[in-house]
Amino acid sequence: MTKILIIGGVAGGASAAARARRLSEDAEIIMFERGHYVSFANCGLPYHIGGDIKDKSKLLLQTPESFLARFNVDVRVMNEVTHINRQDKTVTVKNLLDGSEYREAYDFLLLSPGAGPIVPPIPGLDNPLTHSLRNIPDMERILNTIEMNKPEHATVVGGGFIGLEMMEAFHQLGIKTTLVEMADQVMTPVDREMAGFAHAEIREKGVDLKLGVALESVEYLPSEHIADVNSGEDAAHQHIEGELKLSLNSGETLTTDILIMAIGVRPEIKLAQQAGLQIGELGGICTNEMMQTSDPAIYAVGDAVEAKDFVTNAPSLVPLAGPANRQGRMAADNMFGRNEAYQGTQGTAICKIFDIAVASTGKNEKQLKRDGIKYEKVYVHTASHASYYPGAEIVSFKMLFDPNTGKILGAQAVGKDGIDKRIDVMAVAQRAGMTVEQLQHLELTYAPPYGSAKDVINQAAFVASNLMKGDAKAIHYHEISHLTDEQLLLDVRNPGELEAMGSLAGAINIPVDQLRQRINELPKDKEIIIYCQVGLRGNVAYRQLVNNGYKARNLLGGFRTYQFAQA
Amino acid sequence: MTKILIIGGVAGGASAAARARRLSEDAEIIMFERGHYVSFANCGLPYHIGGDIKDKSKLLLQTPESFLARFNVDVRVMNEVTHINRQDKTVTVKNLLDGSEYREAYDFLLLSPGAGPIVPPIPGLDNPLTHSLRNIPDMERILNTIEMNKPEHATVVGGGFIGLEMMEAFHQLGIKTTLVEMADQVMTPVDREMAGFAHAEIREKGVDLKLGVALESVEYLPSEHIADVNSGEDAAHQHIEGELKLSLNSGETLTTDILIMAIGVRPEIKLAQQAGLQIGELGGICTNEMMQTSDPAIYAVGDAVEAKDFVTNAPSLVPLAGPANRQGRMAADNMFGRNEAYQGTQGTAICKIFDIAVASTGKNEKQLKRDGIKYEKVYVHTASHASYYPGAEIVSFKMLFDPNTGKILGAQAVGKDGIDKRIDVMAVAQRAGMTVEQLQHLELTYAPPYGSAKDVINQAAFVASNLMKGDAKAIHYHEISHLTDEQLLLDVRNPGELEAMGSLAGAINIPVDQLRQRINELPKDKEIIIYCQVGLRGNVAYRQLVNNGYKARNLLGGFRTYQFAQA
Repeated sequence: MTKILIIGGVAGGASAAARARRLSEDAEIIMFERGHYVSFANCGLPYHIGGDIKDKSKLLLQTPESFLARFNVDVRVMNEVTHINRQDKTVTVKNLLDGSEYREAYDFLLLSPGAGPIVPPIPGLDNPLTHSLRNIPDMERILNTIEMNKPEHATVVGGGFIGLEMMEAFHQLGIKTTLVEMADQVMTPVDREMAGFAHAEIREKGVDLKLGVALESVEYLPSEHIADVNSGEDAAHQHIEGELKLSLNSGETLTTDILIMAIGVRPEIKLAQQAGLQIGELGGICTNEMMQTSDPAIYAVGDAVEAKDFVTNAPSLVPLAGPANRQGRMAADNMFGRNEAYQGTQGTAICKIFDIAVASTGKNEKQLKRDGIKYEKVYVHTASHASYYPGAEIVSFKMLFDPNTGKILGAQAVGKDGIDKRIDVMAVAQRAGMTVEQLQHLELTYAPPYGSAKDVINQAAFVASNLMKGDAKAIHYHEISHLTDEQLLLDVRNPGELEAMGSLAGAINIPVDQLRQRINELPKDKEIIIYCQVGLRGNVAYRQLVNNGYKARNLLGGFRTYQFAQA
Repeated sequence: MTKILIIGGVAGGASAAARARRLSEDAEIIMFERGHYVSFANCGLPYHIGGDIKDKSKLLLQTPESFLARFNVDVRVMNEVTHINRQDKTVTVKNLLDGSEYREAYDFLLLSPGAGPIVPPIPGLDNPLTHSLRNIPDMERILNTIEMNKPEHATVVGGGFIGLEMMEAFHQLGIKTTLVEMADQVMTPVDREMAGFAHAEIREKGVDLKLGVALESVEYLPSEHIADVNSGEDAAHQHIEGELKLSLNSGETLTTDILIMAIGVRPEIKLAQQAGLQIGELGGICTNEMMQTSDPAIYAVGDAVEAKDFVTNAPSLVPLAGPANRQGRMAADNMFGRNEAYQGTQGTAICKIFDIAVASTGKNEKQLKRDGIKYEKVYVHTASHASYYPGAEIVSFKMLFDPNTGKILGAQAVGKDGIDKRIDVMAVAQRAGMTVEQLQHLELTYAPPYGSAKDVINQAAFVASNLMKGDAKAIHYHEISHLTDEQLLLDVRNPGELEAMGSLAGAINIPVDQLRQRINELPKDKEIIIYCQVGLRGNVAYRQLVNNGYKARNLLGGFRTYQFAQA
């Protein structure tokens, strides 16, 4: 009889427990969770705070009782494993309810402790109005602060998933919100110019977005102080416990009623470290492809481990629910002698930011640059479904690929409709090892309410293939400000568009449909830098000029990419 | 200077013309269209009739003038090519406006004539109230009939894309509608049991759906007759031109005010046939992978050609816009000496039917059976995104795969949300040659508003992999009615579900969470046929029984698949 102990009862741990039971009726399976809850929907927490998910019980996917009934798993909540004793294959457990300690033996141990919020060394953070959000008690503390204090202003530090979702939750509750992000962009899985669409959306919704700004210190001003200052205020202020004065590195100060710290997470490795298991350079638990740690009787999965990156094969820290679930399932398989290898993490991710979705898969341009991987990129902006059918929205799409082989390296998309679909398509194509040439042939669902006969992905593939075959020569948005005297900027949009959308300084305007008649207005000795709104007409003009003996380049993604890169 | 003539100015022809111009400024390109319009959105026609697309001009994607301005293509509408003279590489053209005839020479000729509605030899079809829908004049005739006659009842014959869309259009206009389909299902790209979801939706919306019924004859009763019969009626009947009496092969008769014939389309091959080009067994124009007909100077694309099937490599007739567009682009490439090969048609398709989408890619079970291809299948029904986040809907999903290699053969999905996405994912995976084993590892976008940590596709892949590894033994919905005395039917749902949803006759009920305690109630000498609502708990029960030494099978897709297969 195999005895399996599992530390951590959320995504990876719960998946492993259920799978282990399906593989064996007589295995003994014990799951330890130091918190009150197992198998809760941690991705749903911000949405309960914001009111989208009304019923808290919906977040509790399983209970110790349901796990026992269905899977015969002994779930011990409020039981914290304090030590792993590898020599005798036992763990020491502290029952947090009564303080007692006991040991439990294992044949296999699974570590699924997750990752905890990074708390930076900022003076004054330890106060009753500052929260992070990782689990149900955190959520309840935030809800309680909101209910008791009726905050009028909230500040979120960190523009990652949780920060963005909490920003939206506050906004939805009618609380004025400031989002402070130290980097020059939110949502780091996408590149800066794609994040521009998110910045525009966030500002349009009235959130005070501060990019490139760091929190330096926090001062907690208890309510007595407030009462003095606002002595003339009405009874609504009764519940205010106080407020926070935030000092930013920009020199600004900010008064706020609640502060959420969401600058990132760090693997929980204390137990693994104590037990002498190998820890990687990125600070996560090392595992092999079987999800085994340096001790073959101990497996580790989820946010706490360094998993293999799909593109580079290098170790990576990617705290996402999908990989955690699959790794948990595989770890259980391998405990029972199967041979399931984890096939690497692409880091496919998506975040709802008000009315838009921002999503990505694979490597972004920043990572490719950092890793010294050669790449080319294309941008397209095209309708989420047939533009003549109601509800079509622009999908803004970026694709990164190997300029020699055409292999897909990554993709990013932003917009109001069909974003998840396009990134899913790219995630599959990348995992299958497809090239941009092959993407041209993809046959995706098309009817006017759902797609286009030439989908966004086909169009991006056409642009990329044109580049690879030499049928197109690109210029990118960040090169536009460095034009020389040997180059001439040509706007091929209609005059009305220039007025409505703006245009680039110094450009001459010849609408694409007049270009054949007016081609002689252009000098043959200069390189013509063509742009239109999204790059499509620019390509038509490019081909016309080049086939007429001109030197030219086309701005990929057109004015739209250029414009939102500044946002 | 290359001279290219194009016959047909919609999807394939228009794509070819635009691509040809991008490849060459000095080619002479003439596009002949016997109708009034080029490059119109034929997929949008039913939606203009139904009122979703208010503005007719939105359906006109290009005009002869815009084509000339942008692409320098000489578009000749109302000019019908009546003959191809291969010996001297010319075509004979009739100007339908003035009746004159002329010849035009070509270096390359592209045939993109499309497919026309099949008009069956049913007596009485030729009357002013019977229409088919292929182009803008057809649409205008239908709109005119609706406006003038204010039909109270419409009949659509044929449950394919156009038939279903016209059914919805009539329903949306408040016209009582009957849909008559000769087969036992609508939407033949999916299998009968998946079409059941569509049947339920259609009936729920109040449409009179007649399956397995054929139209035998039509009698046109002009309005004088009506006036006599309805002599007491009020002025609203003034505009009625008459009505139709339909005789069905079921013995029923039906009185209706407008009849749409949409039983399918047939390639337009008259010109190709006259010219002695090779025609395939399916009745389409034969081409090689370069889209060349048996005459190397003549290319053909779109609905009129037999294209290679992606799975079987056999010729197939698949009248869809996506392939037509890509083939047109490739034909132009190849005229200019490129070497672009068409990589086969999967037949990826989707149709909106009221609130649901029905979609598929690759081969369906009917085709696999007919072609003698070995397959296995799985069904899953799972939420379109995290079930705790508002708006989640059930995705009902069927996947077909090779039982030996695991290679994907096809997929079908039905539901209210996320159907296009799942079939797109499968279309890419199939095109990439992926196996169900590999699908387990797909890393798709997940945040509560968009997906699940284990997506529908991952779950289907788990089920399929379980079958391949022998971790699961399936029984299918159509086998349930043939159980023997050696088998025992076990319903593992909760008693409340049995009451609410119904159950299978003769089943005993032990909820999955009580199974461990009550396992002795089951006989070890019989095969236990387990089912739950969708198959997931059934699998948990299956593993438990098998690991305890029982013989068992689990009904894939559960009661839900069984139930809708009857719909």
